[in-house]
Amino acid sequence: MAKDIAELREWTAGITDLRRACAVLQWDKDTLMPPLGAPLRAEQLATLERIAHERLTSERTGELVAAAEAELNGIAPDSVEARIVSETRRQYEKDRRVPVELAVARAKAASQGYETWVAARAAGDFSLFAPALERNFQLAREYIDCFDSYDDPYDIVLDDFAPGMRTAYAERLLHEMRDRLMPLIDMLREREVDVAPLHVDYPVAGQRQLADQVLRWMGFNDAGWRLDDTIHPFETSFSVTDVRLTTRYHGDYFPAGLYAAMHECGHGLYEAGVEPDLQRTPLGLIQSSAIHESQSRLWENMVGRGRAFSNALAPAVAARSDGVLSGLQPDVLFRAVNAVRPSTIRIEADEATYGLHIVLRFELERLLLARELEVDDLPAAWNARMQEYLGVKVGSDAEGVLQDVHWSAGLIGYFPTYAIGNLIAGQLWQRVRLDISDLDDQLAAGELQSLREWLREKVHRHGSRYTDTELLAQVVGGPVEVTPFIEYLKAKLGDAYGVALD
Amino acid sequence: MAKDIAELREWTAGITDLRRACAVLQWDKDTLMPPLGAPLRAEQLATLERIAHERLTSERTGELVAAAEAELNGIAPDSVEARIVSETRRQYEKDRRVPVELAVARAKAASQGYETWVAARAAGDFSLFAPALERNFQLAREYIDCFDSYDDPYDIVLDDFAPGMRTAYAERLLHEMRDRLMPLIDMLREREVDVAPLHVDYPVAGQRQLADQVLRWMGFNDAGWRLDDTIHPFETSFSVTDVRLTTRYHGDYFPAGLYAAMHECGHGLYEAGVEPDLQRTPLGLIQSSAIHESQSRLWENMVGRGRAFSNALAPAVAARSDGVLSGLQPDVLFRAVNAVRPSTIRIEADEATYGLHIVLRFELERLLLARELEVDDLPAAWNARMQEYLGVKVGSDAEGVLQDVHWSAGLIGYFPTYAIGNLIAGQLWQRVRLDISDLDDQLAAGELQSLREWLREKVHRHGSRYTDTELLAQVVGGPVEVTPFIEYLKAKLGDAYGVALD
Repeated sequence: MAKDIAELREWTAGITDLRRACAVLQWDKDTLMPPLGAPLRAEQLATLERIAHERLTSERTGELVAAAEAELNGIAPDSVEARIVSETRRQYEKDRRVPVELAVARAKAASQGYETWVAARAAGDFSLFAPALERNFQLAREYIDCFDSYDDPYDIVLDDFAPGMRTAYAERLLHEMRDRLMPLIDMLREREVDVAPLHVDYPVAGQRQLADQVLRWMGFNDAGWRLDDTIHPFETSFSVTDVRLTTRYHGDYFPAGLYAAMHECGHGLYEAGVEPDLQRTPLGLIQSSAIHESQSRLWENMVGRGRAFSNALAPAVAARSDGVLSGLQPDVLFRAVNAVRPSTIRIEADEATYGLHIVLRFELERLLLARELEVDDLPAAWNARMQEYLGVKVGSDAEGVLQDVHWSAGLIGYFPTYAIGNLIAGQLWQRVRLDISDLDDQLAAGELQSLREWLREKVHRHGSRYTDTELLAQVVGGPVEVTPFIEYLKAKLGDAYGVALD
Repeated sequence: MAKDIAELREWTAGITDLRRACAVLQWDKDTLMPPLGAPLRAEQLATLERIAHERLTSERTGELVAAAEAELNGIAPDSVEARIVSETRRQYEKDRRVPVELAVARAKAASQGYETWVAARAAGDFSLFAPALERNFQLAREYIDCFDSYDDPYDIVLDDFAPGMRTAYAERLLHEMRDRLMPLIDMLREREVDVAPLHVDYPVAGQRQLADQVLRWMGFNDAGWRLDDTIHPFETSFSVTDVRLTTRYHGDYFPAGLYAAMHECGHGLYEAGVEPDLQRTPLGLIQSSAIHESQSRLWENMVGRGRAFSNALAPAVAARSDGVLSGLQPDVLFRAVNAVRPSTIRIEADEATYGLHIVLRFELERLLLARELEVDDLPAAWNARMQEYLGVKVGSDAEGVLQDVHWSAGLIGYFPTYAIGNLIAGQLWQRVRLDISDLDDQLAAGELQSLREWLREKVHRHGSRYTDTELLAQVVGGPVEVTPFIEYLKAKLGDAYGVALD
């Protein structure tokens, strides 16, 4: 390996270590930390953020990148070496426009915002949260002001989670998806589905065993994974063999904990599947939330809510239900978890209405960012749009605008990646069913290894080596498309409802 | 506050944050981390160590300290401001002699050594551990070689845990203690004590409840503390309101978990009691392990194994024992936990023999450091000295040389602080019994608040503001002494055995 590239690699390994250290402090904060630990934890995270930002944007990074670029002659532009250099260049050029004090202020506001959100949510009082929310949006505006080249200000924050993606492109995809989902939802809205089996008193101890069993089918093992409780489920990892999942359980609605665990495990498999050699390079940290969400949503929905896997899942659900769901039939479970029921809570939404929850958030965060909507008017705007898109009435801010962690933690620009992740999952699902001809038989037996290995081979192992566009071109032969997801959904819902949806 | 002092304070706050971040990664590593997380965690810790070392030893630190010193005119030399400056100067002068690569190598070897020790201990095979041990001692020698001014090479490592203390001084104290303990042990060695109540099958679930109850009496609360399981109990903290205790339970010997929890909680109370304003200064991290151990040993032994507290403890032990110890009498418990029984395991040793375990380790680590003893010969030397000092035969390396975590984690020079901590605890105990006249009545009722507040007022709140010598002068009127500890022990053991020991 050329000398300057090696030196850049070593330098960025330290930055990666800092990012992982931040992730450890974040994970601890959001799972186990005693509540009074919050103020100093925010300082500690801010200090790590400051150091990481200073390193990444330092003259030394600039010099090392330039020297490494000069060494790239003859090296394939999509080789690991070349991509370590270009990814560092990309991050360097973006981050060095941002003053360190602003980067630190955003990190601090994110920590504090999360704490404020937890308290406001527990109290069901949006007014407690509003100042923190305003602060996060104000800092996002200041962040955008550091840049001068964009079609839309939102491009800058979207790019943080979907590198290279423009707002207009995301909007076109989201609106096409919305316009194709709404008639589908309308067709199914009034149809009867028996969802009673989901709303039973299922002991939390049994729910833990159920999650444990399903995660082990997926690839979870005690040598390199943990599952812990939290308020808002998330996944993080500190190495390819140190993956942390979190979930939470509702005693009267077991799908909440189960599907959150599968969703987060889908994220975890992605990070666990990265080529170990990439771990301490910039390619070892997944940059694309869109691809990330395609993995979590594929496991949660295509697998977890699919007819095939229901054959393995239903007996597992029944066995740990303390008799409450004994004899649960796969078909009953399959139909229940695919009921199209417009509701107020995104992470419990069915796959058809889910996309509308995202469109709503995408639109509202753009309005907030542009100050076309003020924070104080957000709850009313939220509730009005829920009525418009989903036809549901939001009973309280806790089940409305206070339900999501993202904005509290400064994750502005993240939401579209869920919907785009669904679209990509639709494309991957279409592809893998061609590549593994007996996939349904395997899923029905609870055998998830072939699927996991396919995803590892096609997606996971590359980490952030390829752009989304490149990766999709390799795996499915083209860019993000809405049709495969809609076709998949129509076939599945048609099956679940026993109707033809074309 | 003067400008340069303020700037120094801000600069060192970042270093303190880095130390706390390291502590979070360490804590996670030693409690919850999946085993395969170890290799990358070692890299992450090494990177944080590198950055902290570079910051502390940077020209900027030197300039800020010099500028701050120039501003100190007229400020009391033992004021918080002056001590922040002088403590930073002390650390700067010591650490800048150490090349960053050596500091990083020591941090990495400590992480890896710990992992190796865990595996070797589980396998009961010293030969697996020997190379890691050799490496840690070799790095300690290289570390000592960075300095040229000492009476004894061991001074340098001792100073890391007892700033300013010299080997000759520690040796004099330890040997006086040893020479006064040995006849005491000889007098009691053959006497009968009923220790059967300690060796019962006490359900671990009940042991957890017992530890929880006792810790809450001590001041543990869910808002700012956690208790988790580990292999080798330790305490760490990330703020004065984020204190982490760890312990482990033996199903057939409940004192192991109980007293380890009390010991660690004694450490925790020290760190929780530091004046909050000092938290992000160099004075907020406790530099003196000797004072630290005085706190843990005072709570574990003077309180936990005292006759007075037995009145509160015995019913608590009985109540959670699942009937195994119902009706346990305070006097029976008191006598059992004070049985002088030379044995192989340090952390389960009685107070009289404990000191000899320390002397043994102090002597062996000095020999290893000086290469007067080779690592391969350590088990034999260990076992021979156990025979000499304690008259016990070590059955296996697991209960011999592999029992302690310290050397594996690079903590060479730490052991003497346990014994000196015991001596200091003897002095504090003598003092507090004069200051709180009804202390025994309070302890007998399980009321530990006055004692905790006294310690907070006299010791905890100062953090590392004073040297050990200054602090002891303030609280007990003089330097470390052996007599108060020996007198305390004679009185207690005389009571427990019903004999006069003078």
